[in-house]
Amino acid sequence: MMQRCLSLARQALGKTAPNPLVGSVVVKDGRIVGEGFHPGAGQPHAEVFALRQAGEQARGATIYVSLEPCNHYGRTPPCSEAVVKAGVARAIVGMVDPNPKVAGGGIARLREAGIEVIVGVEEEACRQLNEAFIHRILHHRPFGILKYAMTLDGKIATTTGHSAWVTGEDARKAVHQLRSACDAVIVGGNTVRSDNPQLTSHRTDIPNPLRVVMSRTLDLPENARLWQTEEAPTLVCTEAGVKPEFQQRLRDLGVETIELESVTPAGVMELLYDRGSLSVLWECGGTLAARAIADRSVQKVIAFIAPKIVGGKIAPSPVSDLGLETMPEALNLEHARWYAVGKDIAIEGYLSE
Amino acid sequence: MMQRCLSLARQALGKTAPNPLVGSVVVKDGRIVGEGFHPGAGQPHAEVFALRQAGEQARGATIYVSLEPCNHYGRTPPCSEAVVKAGVARAIVGMVDPNPKVAGGGIARLREAGIEVIVGVEEEACRQLNEAFIHRILHHRPFGILKYAMTLDGKIATTTGHSAWVTGEDARKAVHQLRSACDAVIVGGNTVRSDNPQLTSHRTDIPNPLRVVMSRTLDLPENARLWQTEEAPTLVCTEAGVKPEFQQRLRDLGVETIELESVTPAGVMELLYDRGSLSVLWECGGTLAARAIADRSVQKVIAFIAPKIVGGKIAPSPVSDLGLETMPEALNLEHARWYAVGKDIAIEGYLSE
Repeated sequence: MMQRCLSLARQALGKTAPNPLVGSVVVKDGRIVGEGFHPGAGQPHAEVFALRQAGEQARGATIYVSLEPCNHYGRTPPCSEAVVKAGVARAIVGMVDPNPKVAGGGIARLREAGIEVIVGVEEEACRQLNEAFIHRILHHRPFGILKYAMTLDGKIATTTGHSAWVTGEDARKAVHQLRSACDAVIVGGNTVRSDNPQLTSHRTDIPNPLRVVMSRTLDLPENARLWQTEEAPTLVCTEAGVKPEFQQRLRDLGVETIELESVTPAGVMELLYDRGSLSVLWECGGTLAARAIADRSVQKVIAFIAPKIVGGKIAPSPVSDLGLETMPEALNLEHARWYAVGKDIAIEGYLSE
Repeated sequence: MMQRCLSLARQALGKTAPNPLVGSVVVKDGRIVGEGFHPGAGQPHAEVFALRQAGEQARGATIYVSLEPCNHYGRTPPCSEAVVKAGVARAIVGMVDPNPKVAGGGIARLREAGIEVIVGVEEEACRQLNEAFIHRILHHRPFGILKYAMTLDGKIATTTGHSAWVTGEDARKAVHQLRSACDAVIVGGNTVRSDNPQLTSHRTDIPNPLRVVMSRTLDLPENARLWQTEEAPTLVCTEAGVKPEFQQRLRDLGVETIELESVTPAGVMELLYDRGSLSVLWECGGTLAARAIADRSVQKVIAFIAPKIVGGKIAPSPVSDLGLETMPEALNLEHARWYAVGKDIAIEGYLSE
């Protein structure tokens, strides 16, 4: 049932920021009588939809919810009250609220009302689904994901910079889905100049992220796919007073421009935090990737590896200088796992804090 | 039973060159009555050992053998005759002889003698066990394996050249075993200078390969672990007339030196073919690895990938210039597969001919 909650929750992937992904199921006599998920900020929470669908059958039933019901008045009334009012007998909660200040409050309210509460069912899966939300709550920053595609000999492009394509169609589709689960995608000026990427989900049924370009100099092409904003919004971050006419041209095309005091990965992550982003995808080249890692703006790395060899001493690798001189200084990825994606393989893991 | 043949055959890994790995089992009334494997050149073949152990019970029995019994007088009499003479009723053969000139001869001889023969049982596994032998027979060259260990961002060392260690202990042990299954291991002068490697199996119960150094200039250290030849032999390949005194010093230490017309990967592979090598492991840096690939001296690639990020624009990657300028020109690995090795992951595949 908790797995069902998670798959319900996933239906809103990429749409809930700054809220978490939550799913809920109401079960009466071994039968599902209500289901719901949180579709996005400003809309009712998962439990409310599930209880609404269950109606009178909620009385004496068991409610499953992947995240502790909230206990405070936000844009919606507290879910704990809705659960109490519905008269459920038992609540199964995937994980407690990650915010240490409010954690346990919703559960306590349910127990006070005489509801039997079990906490921590499928907790690991619940935590993983909301890893970005949890990071945001605890660290007041979005969750940064560095994604790259490289050959088996560690190259993201050839010696001439050519990179279409490193991986196969399945991996590229997986990246499109990854983008749609993220609230923003960041590249640097180099990537815009050399790859002219689109950075969308390439699908109409799943959302597109905000596309962010970091460029101190605004040495960017007059025409670029990223300046086409009908499909997805674009934000260009630069420094104060750089190329005002070019900035105006971008704005005329519907591109948002913003002047930051310093165009650093951490500065852009702060901006995106303020805008409510949960997860941010770094799809940049090695130079910006290294700066983002050094700036602690990358929490997770997802590497797509194509089983091919392209060679090239000066062909670029995914991460430029981190200033590490001996191998034991290398940054270990924790909880590493891998899986096939078509003919390619994905390896992912977490940088320790 | 064929799997049992293969595991018997594997007991001689690294010891049979230029002969194949072969295992054999004699089964009477559902019970194994004889087992054997080919221990190495000049010694009896697998079937002979299995039949010898079976003795009189071989009469009317079934013999399993992973490779077609030979039908010619070499250093030992033909196995087909031994099988016929033993009076077995049935022979199950894993794969036919890879040499197109003699393929099927042994099987025909058995059928002539009235023995029922079934061919192609577990054929894929039999072929894989002897992939090096098959390549040697068909192409008159040893089977080249390029092995490297890199970080998840494609680096085999840091910007300063430091590389101890990229992977964990399990992966390093797997490499020691891989070495012992190979007849020779090749490095270039760069690797000797920067890593001072030992290139042994680090075990007394499994064989060591011939350690080969390719160096046109003999710009090599006076003292190196590779010059210690008590544990394993070392061969240095250079050009005619280079540093005769240094060559003499190496010979005094028990290192063999040889002057080749041109010290190319293909030239060294030819030399190793003439010496009977089945499989040759390239454990070199990126420059020599690229030359070996370009020279068609690499048939298989085994990459050990450590889930860590070290960065570095000038930190070396496993393969230097191959002259490929666009991504579609990259060399695809066929039959790619991957598996965990401790905390690391190994990805391997075959370069197409």
